[in-house]
Amino acid sequence: MRILHHFPLSPYCRKVRLMLGEKRLPFEPLTERVWEQRREFANLNPAGEVPVLVEENGLVIPDSNVICEYLEEAYPDPCLLGRTLAERVEIRRLVAWFDQKFARDVTNNLLGEKVFKRLSGRGNPDGTALRVGYANIKPHLDYIGQLAESRSWLAGGALSLADFAAAAHVSCLDFIGDIDWSKTPAAHDWYARIKSRPSFRPLLNDRVSGINPPAYYANLDF
Amino acid sequence: MRILHHFPLSPYCRKVRLMLGEKRLPFEPLTERVWEQRREFANLNPAGEVPVLVEENGLVIPDSNVICEYLEEAYPDPCLLGRTLAERVEIRRLVAWFDQKFARDVTNNLLGEKVFKRLSGRGNPDGTALRVGYANIKPHLDYIGQLAESRSWLAGGALSLADFAAAAHVSCLDFIGDIDWSKTPAAHDWYARIKSRPSFRPLLNDRVSGINPPAYYANLDF
Repeated sequence: MRILHHFPLSPYCRKVRLMLGEKRLPFEPLTERVWEQRREFANLNPAGEVPVLVEENGLVIPDSNVICEYLEEAYPDPCLLGRTLAERVEIRRLVAWFDQKFARDVTNNLLGEKVFKRLSGRGNPDGTALRVGYANIKPHLDYIGQLAESRSWLAGGALSLADFAAAAHVSCLDFIGDIDWSKTPAAHDWYARIKSRPSFRPLLNDRVSGINPPAYYANLDF
Repeated sequence: MRILHHFPLSPYCRKVRLMLGEKRLPFEPLTERVWEQRREFANLNPAGEVPVLVEENGLVIPDSNVICEYLEEAYPDPCLLGRTLAERVEIRRLVAWFDQKFARDVTNNLLGEKVFKRLSGRGNPDGTALRVGYANIKPHLDYIGQLAESRSWLAGGALSLADFAAAAHVSCLDFIGDIDWSKTPAAHDWYARIKSRPSFRPLLNDRVSGINPPAYYANLDF
């Protein structure tokens, strides 16, 4: 059986889970608490990070970006990375936007400070980081809304990895109750569409000890 | 003419310049000082970062990773991202290793603190960051040495993007005199091989006002 070493509230792992789900590739998820620095896990991925996918043939694939590129090459149907060069550039541009810029501006400041800092025993959230994170959330959701209003999906006419990268970050912030959906109707409509996909259901069932998501988190009509 | 918006001492831009050079794709390099936040550049890349490649047909490609994937798809010869799925996983794994882990452990702490902080007017280097960077440089060069001793090139039998990603970071640190080559003979031998490639020559001619590289920086017999 294909194995995914992951952590439920990691947006990078969620992106990979969505891609595996959309491509209908069954896998066994194994939760890895990377801050515990297990030696067996370090042998699997010297970088010490999740996600790591292990294929049935033994191929070990670390890093969410490496995994997604691999999955698209190994299992091209359905196509999630675009067909033309220009489509592929736009999808990958947006994946980098969410995994790097959105992460730096928002995710690291909110999820990083409130959840991962506590879980890994690195102390209390930093007030300045939280303020920066909250200030950045609205412009970023507005950008998602702008894209979603001018196109069928974030990167163009087709659902793609760009939507999953965005939804992975947004869903983690929604889990900790940090998104005020009433303020961003266009982003809300896009998120409602992607949230209703079968590939999303496992993410809505995630539970993390000590953190209770708001009641609307798993609700498709939020 | 193809244009590359870049900054000479950015390892991500250097990786792209090496790939363009190896694929013999002519381009005009334009230096962008991203911390000046020029509006025209923000219009080109909302993320506000270099490198950005602009093709003759007008296609705008931001982000070093997106550019390298694009170049391999648009100009597949010579192959620099591997042929089999396993080769491509290993090359991309190492690119992620250098662009993320090496960057976080070493480059950001040394080049980031000593060069980019000053250039962008964010003050003096942080002593703790410098200590962390210097402590991490040796184990990382040892890892490069181990790879280079057990394989022809870092990711396997063929020269690949993994070598360029590594050499891009190493060359920037070498520019500011932070690498003691006497301590890592295996990494030295690998770097001497890659440094002697024609694609590397433009990097050895880089000059940045206010920073003088050590005499051996551009020397092929260092």
